[in-house]
Amino acid sequence: MAKKYDVVIIGGGPAGVTTALSARNTYPTKTICIIRKETLTPIPCGIPYVMHSLSSVTDNVLPDSLLQKNQIDLFIDEVLDFRNEKTLVLKSGEEVQFEKLVLATGSTPIVPPIQGIEKDGIFYVKKDLDYLEKLKQKVHEARRILIIGAGFIGIEFADELNRAGKEVVIIERLPYVLSLSIDADIAEIFEKHIQSLGIQLVTGAAVQEIYGEKKAEGVRLENGQTYPADLILIAVGYKPNTQLAQKLGLEYHEKYGIIVDEYLRTSIRDIFAVGDCAAKRNWFTGEYTSVMLASTAMAQGRLVGSNLFEIKVIKGFPGTLGTFSTKVGDLALGVTGLTEKQAQAMGIQYVIGFHESVDRHPGKLPGAKPIKVKLLFSRYSHFLLGAQVLGGDSVGELINMLSVMVQNRMTDMEIDTLQIGTHPLLTASPIAYPVINATVDAILKWYTGK
Amino acid sequence: MAKKYDVVIIGGGPAGVTTALSARNTYPTKTICIIRKETLTPIPCGIPYVMHSLSSVTDNVLPDSLLQKNQIDLFIDEVLDFRNEKTLVLKSGEEVQFEKLVLATGSTPIVPPIQGIEKDGIFYVKKDLDYLEKLKQKVHEARRILIIGAGFIGIEFADELNRAGKEVVIIERLPYVLSLSIDADIAEIFEKHIQSLGIQLVTGAAVQEIYGEKKAEGVRLENGQTYPADLILIAVGYKPNTQLAQKLGLEYHEKYGIIVDEYLRTSIRDIFAVGDCAAKRNWFTGEYTSVMLASTAMAQGRLVGSNLFEIKVIKGFPGTLGTFSTKVGDLALGVTGLTEKQAQAMGIQYVIGFHESVDRHPGKLPGAKPIKVKLLFSRYSHFLLGAQVLGGDSVGELINMLSVMVQNRMTDMEIDTLQIGTHPLLTASPIAYPVINATVDAILKWYTGK
Repeated sequence: MAKKYDVVIIGGGPAGVTTALSARNTYPTKTICIIRKETLTPIPCGIPYVMHSLSSVTDNVLPDSLLQKNQIDLFIDEVLDFRNEKTLVLKSGEEVQFEKLVLATGSTPIVPPIQGIEKDGIFYVKKDLDYLEKLKQKVHEARRILIIGAGFIGIEFADELNRAGKEVVIIERLPYVLSLSIDADIAEIFEKHIQSLGIQLVTGAAVQEIYGEKKAEGVRLENGQTYPADLILIAVGYKPNTQLAQKLGLEYHEKYGIIVDEYLRTSIRDIFAVGDCAAKRNWFTGEYTSVMLASTAMAQGRLVGSNLFEIKVIKGFPGTLGTFSTKVGDLALGVTGLTEKQAQAMGIQYVIGFHESVDRHPGKLPGAKPIKVKLLFSRYSHFLLGAQVLGGDSVGELINMLSVMVQNRMTDMEIDTLQIGTHPLLTASPIAYPVINATVDAILKWYTGK
Repeated sequence: MAKKYDVVIIGGGPAGVTTALSARNTYPTKTICIIRKETLTPIPCGIPYVMHSLSSVTDNVLPDSLLQKNQIDLFIDEVLDFRNEKTLVLKSGEEVQFEKLVLATGSTPIVPPIQGIEKDGIFYVKKDLDYLEKLKQKVHEARRILIIGAGFIGIEFADELNRAGKEVVIIERLPYVLSLSIDADIAEIFEKHIQSLGIQLVTGAAVQEIYGEKKAEGVRLENGQTYPADLILIAVGYKPNTQLAQKLGLEYHEKYGIIVDEYLRTSIRDIFAVGDCAAKRNWFTGEYTSVMLASTAMAQGRLVGSNLFEIKVIKGFPGTLGTFSTKVGDLALGVTGLTEKQAQAMGIQYVIGFHESVDRHPGKLPGAKPIKVKLLFSRYSHFLLGAQVLGGDSVGELINMLSVMVQNRMTDMEIDTLQIGTHPLLTASPIAYPVINATVDAILKWYTGK
């Protein structure tokens, strides 16, 4: 006898949990369950910090109490197949029937086609607690660690492993760190900071081979240089998990994920997809994008949860804006919207505004740190297109403010006359508030025709 | 022979300087000067921190280099009168002719009508470097300091003086700290924190008399209680400086300041007023408000500077929103828009959303602090009306994000589906992001009719 639920969610990561909570809030009388493989689910973005800052891997898990409190049933099980279009078959043999199905199956680390990639001693950043426990153990034993990939996860692991006293080398194929997310001028500052911490950075460097007998002992680049290592960590991105979608006959794209509309509805009625497994489109152009972010997953999850049985929130998902933040050493970086490189690739004309200040005022106050803000405005429609910020911890919320500005399609003139609160111990001074001043810098370029 | 300028600005505080810089940017060929009384201008909001955190009073001054760099002439002088409608007479005997005049004459501490207020040993928070130097000296000599007034400046001085090892007592007439800016529930938490630092807080307490021979020795409350003190600091607010406006025959309001329109134009052509000396209206209702803020002054200054000779920024000043932040001990507080109390007084129906979380994720990460967000939404039009936030340093920019949301008239549903960036070391987790979750809390109250 199949168990019956109004809403069945496959996947217990942030996208799945948010969908479940949102559905519970919106439809208090519906029965809801989550089916997930993992006994415990790690918080994805917290994974680097279990290596050193957190004493245990289990300090970084999504609390299941949230599910119990909200009458969301949990199956630690795996969906193998479909009995019919409304019934799932689980690994345990159980069957679960649904009225609405949400796929939140997430993503899996990409295995790059490098010679020797199958050797021992090569690890990935998997969202799997047991695996991470083992990785932490191996990291502990290693002295010299090589990270392939200088994306967000690569540099965050580098920072953590460096703090843990390891000798860390990052190898990146592209010309600079975070190449897909920031411009070269911002990257240059960030790279100098990374190197100042003692992390070795090798960019524009394609790996030809991972050498070693049975166990990986290092990498050889295409230019012949070799880098020995006790442990190799691969961080070259993730691919959407689309196996179930495939079994169901849903439309999907191998690279981008399950095809969904603005309300996250798949090609089959009553089936939705959210988070990393769903194909995403760029906020500005509607083109497919492979950016995978918790912020996107959250926004999607809240939308889907509310709209499962009727469209309550009359506003679809407008595409991935891409709002990131990170911190390496004591330098934080925030990015939202378009970079110069992306705007160029999309054929969008822009004007740059830049301002550098300190994040306390006067600057002599203890704890004051430099802050740099780079803004991109559309040259003709004057909208804020994107921002890149380097500074202290306040960057985390500052980039969210900028993201709110982009999402509201604010123009330079509107930002210029905004009312912004400042405080000596918390922000830059009102006269040197970098977001406003960078906006003024952009406006001046129009006035002067530059 | 009168000197001649296209733009003359009276006052060298943040409003005056911002106006000058904005005018310079917008009108590169115009001649501009600032006339101010003070040799050096303190940064107003930094004043409390010269008492202890900064070693010298001169560590907290607006840099005049900014004026020189922008070809803005500076007169250290005082405007006494007007020769004719376009010519000023200065104390030095010099005369200055203008095409456009901007009054940025600021505000002066209110002297409360308390018996004994004329005695020695009573100080105010004046924006005057020499005076502050003397105050710092006297503070240094004092053991027990009494602060009358628990507004932002009162509590910030209390925090600084407490750090400096002084015995500090705050006396407030109203029922709780920051009564004009926050609600009682938020104040209760903030007060407990203030008291936990060892600061004595006496609220709902009217001062009847300052006693002592020639020198103030303490205060007696209306209920008979006495509080001895070596030094008394009065921090009960500021009144706009309108003496010059009076001489000029400008319309002004004794309590609120010089009457201006949406473009900060006074009742006489070619004369503008900005900042504390200009009457401000509430962003929501257009009623007069006595809130004086650097954030308001800045927004006004940028607007006036751009619009002096022609209206370039087609968007007047929409009224004071009121975005504040402060920090006492290690607890930061941010406020924007309306409180419950203000909404009630204005007759605006509202719904409250509340969420409490931690500002790092997972919460076990070092440095994680609790964060509480209270949001007010309009019950019928669903706009965000205001926010009150308590937490760590990230509150400084978080409240600016909320201020941007209010200024964009964002609704609950729009905030619910926002894309917000999160990072373990910088923000709350995506699932527990307090601004979103407090919004969801408010939405649920509608769904359930509560």
